[in-house]
Amino acid sequence: MAEDWTQMWKELGLELGNHDKLMAALGPLYLEWFADQPNRPEAMRYFDFVISEVHGLRIKELLDHKEKGGAVVGTFCLFVPEEVVVALDGVAVGLCAGADFSVPIAEAELPRNLCPLIKSFYGFKLGKICPYFESADVVVGETTCDGKKKVYEHLGKIHPVYVMEVPNKKGPAGRELWRTELENFIAAMEEITGNRLTEDNLRAAVKKVNDKRRAIRRVHELRWNDPAPISGKDALLIMQISFYDDVERFTRKADEVADELEKRVAAGEGVFPAGTPRLMVSGTPMAIPNWKIHHVVETSGAAVVAEEMCTGFRYFKNTVNEDAKTLDEMKEALVDHYMDINCACFTPNEARLDDIEYLYKSSGAQGIIHATLSFCTPYLVEQGSVKKFAAEHDVPLVAVETDYSEGDVGQLKTRVEALVEQVSS
Amino acid sequence: MAEDWTQMWKELGLELGNHDKLMAALGPLYLEWFADQPNRPEAMRYFDFVISEVHGLRIKELLDHKEKGGAVVGTFCLFVPEEVVVALDGVAVGLCAGADFSVPIAEAELPRNLCPLIKSFYGFKLGKICPYFESADVVVGETTCDGKKKVYEHLGKIHPVYVMEVPNKKGPAGRELWRTELENFIAAMEEITGNRLTEDNLRAAVKKVNDKRRAIRRVHELRWNDPAPISGKDALLIMQISFYDDVERFTRKADEVADELEKRVAAGEGVFPAGTPRLMVSGTPMAIPNWKIHHVVETSGAAVVAEEMCTGFRYFKNTVNEDAKTLDEMKEALVDHYMDINCACFTPNEARLDDIEYLYKSSGAQGIIHATLSFCTPYLVEQGSVKKFAAEHDVPLVAVETDYSEGDVGQLKTRVEALVEQVSS
Repeated sequence: MAEDWTQMWKELGLELGNHDKLMAALGPLYLEWFADQPNRPEAMRYFDFVISEVHGLRIKELLDHKEKGGAVVGTFCLFVPEEVVVALDGVAVGLCAGADFSVPIAEAELPRNLCPLIKSFYGFKLGKICPYFESADVVVGETTCDGKKKVYEHLGKIHPVYVMEVPNKKGPAGRELWRTELENFIAAMEEITGNRLTEDNLRAAVKKVNDKRRAIRRVHELRWNDPAPISGKDALLIMQISFYDDVERFTRKADEVADELEKRVAAGEGVFPAGTPRLMVSGTPMAIPNWKIHHVVETSGAAVVAEEMCTGFRYFKNTVNEDAKTLDEMKEALVDHYMDINCACFTPNEARLDDIEYLYKSSGAQGIIHATLSFCTPYLVEQGSVKKFAAEHDVPLVAVETDYSEGDVGQLKTRVEALVEQVSS
Repeated sequence: MAEDWTQMWKELGLELGNHDKLMAALGPLYLEWFADQPNRPEAMRYFDFVISEVHGLRIKELLDHKEKGGAVVGTFCLFVPEEVVVALDGVAVGLCAGADFSVPIAEAELPRNLCPLIKSFYGFKLGKICPYFESADVVVGETTCDGKKKVYEHLGKIHPVYVMEVPNKKGPAGRELWRTELENFIAAMEEITGNRLTEDNLRAAVKKVNDKRRAIRRVHELRWNDPAPISGKDALLIMQISFYDDVERFTRKADEVADELEKRVAAGEGVFPAGTPRLMVSGTPMAIPNWKIHHVVETSGAAVVAEEMCTGFRYFKNTVNEDAKTLDEMKEALVDHYMDINCACFTPNEARLDDIEYLYKSSGAQGIIHATLSFCTPYLVEQGSVKKFAAEHDVPLVAVETDYSEGDVGQLKTRVEALVEQVSS
């Protein structure tokens, strides 16, 4: 790291001993898993830099923003309408949630039989090792799963928390509930930021966030070419960074990657040889530094070419309608947008199978890894439907349930290699 | 069993081989765990009879009801408004869900890391070993937890299913959603039963079901005396049977138990010696034949004197307001009633702690067993709050996570005995 941020971390109240240990573990992992990839796009340099400053420069930016009276809003879920936060001159950041490091800290208060993402984020807060958490004026939670819904109650006792209710069904009553929740969220964010939502600032914010979604989509769709012009790991990394980087800068930098990838595609260049077996991953989100499955795949002779997950297609599939004119119409457009996410929190959620089919065919994938975090009931139960879909469509599929530990890497590798062999033969 | 019901089971499409095995296992278990209890109330004979005919005479009654054009509605949850079913001349029955026997059958399609109650009911259907399931015109599910919410999707492919959305929060938007869901449920039930909901039939149904709740409450409050006039196991059994027996007959029979218990209390008689250590159980519901924890407690020198759970206090704590006059007012009263259940599906659910405190003090309990089914995230995470409450109020507490297998009985017994020793000293 270029600069010493110790003083900043101290002022944020971080527990420096543990935080140092965490940083000392992440650096070498990143170097080993990312820097060594052959023929990476030049434009990835920016994202390497962002990772190297993940708890440094970006936090400094957040604190500078707060210094000027701005608000920082922490989130864990696609359903939190970032357009509203951006419109009110707030910064929305995804909080730390992807490391095994903080899981044991959380298990002092939470059950072991619980999703690692949830244990991880709670441990990051409890152990004071996430500077994003400590910079966030409020954490906006949602009711998308039992685990998060209930753990936000505990979190609310040690950090300001605001919870949005996502309905369980998408029908008219559910939409109406979400409409009300959006209105309440706007009021709460206006209070926190001290700004008022207007047609102008919301329109500009929708445009900004849409541009971000479009830039990521460009990168991800370019992966559909063979040879793939960028690794799955790097594409995932860009996706992950989109949740906490400055929106406009991120968009420019992602577009730079896309520009470079377009040239590669035109020249027939890639990061893997043409004909490399292509796999798609579908399931639960992958928070930094959870790169396990992508790393296993891409060190087993295959490429990940698509992610049907929150850190992937579910985020950039749709943009918010920009034709809405009045503030009311814009709010309706936001409601439509968020109710169109095919998350397993909804029942039924059949449209997710359409997304999987679309992405599978478009990306030229030859097999699917259905990957869920341990104890993630919504996706674990939906796995049955995805398996049935795969069987009916003759799609090779491997289903894995995994956490953030390294204990199962050997077993994962064996199963992924078997899938790679199956799709290659 | 008095009669041979084989022909009836065959006509219902039961898988007789497995069903025989199940019945052969349950009979001796019941005899061993219930019949041998000393000084049981005479009036328990009826409930013994009901259990002996659990898959026989009661099913015959349901089929006779259907023969006459009546409907049978299967449920798994307190939130399904049975008053509406009763008003429309339907019969609401809780379905089979408490046996380890059917769990492996379900695991062919469902994840292992899933609540045993859910795996059990799905296995009962998949294996065709529950005559209640096979008699039910429709199963009414709800969205109270991720597991049930998602498994109803699978169930809907092999049985008619109707799902009610229970909101995640109790505020005005959630209440409004539930009001709409009630209206939709009424329309669906009118369609299924062919009857119309009226002021008269709803008023009569509310009264009937309230009487049932009141009768159970009488029995349960009489347990608050020392010596306890009835065992926890028998009180739980009455509660469990209330979910599938004929409403009016059940109410009479529960009242007969209560009458007998009143005489015992007046005479200072009980089923355990005065001064026997008293424990309360709080947590997830116990479906027949899940009597494990009660049996462990009552063979470890203590008595269970209260249950803060769905098969317990949560069911009979409140009655539906009988003063409502118009159909609309009655519907509002139903909405109020159901939104007043303190289930862990809601966030927050602080009022559950008030219920625990009330029941703990009223019942004269000296310690709490917080018992959750494995992988039940809502109650497992709330466990943290209950533990905190217990610590703050100096209440001895043991928290257990258990399933329907017998593998952990020894370990449970050790922990319960330690709690009994603690409260006795």
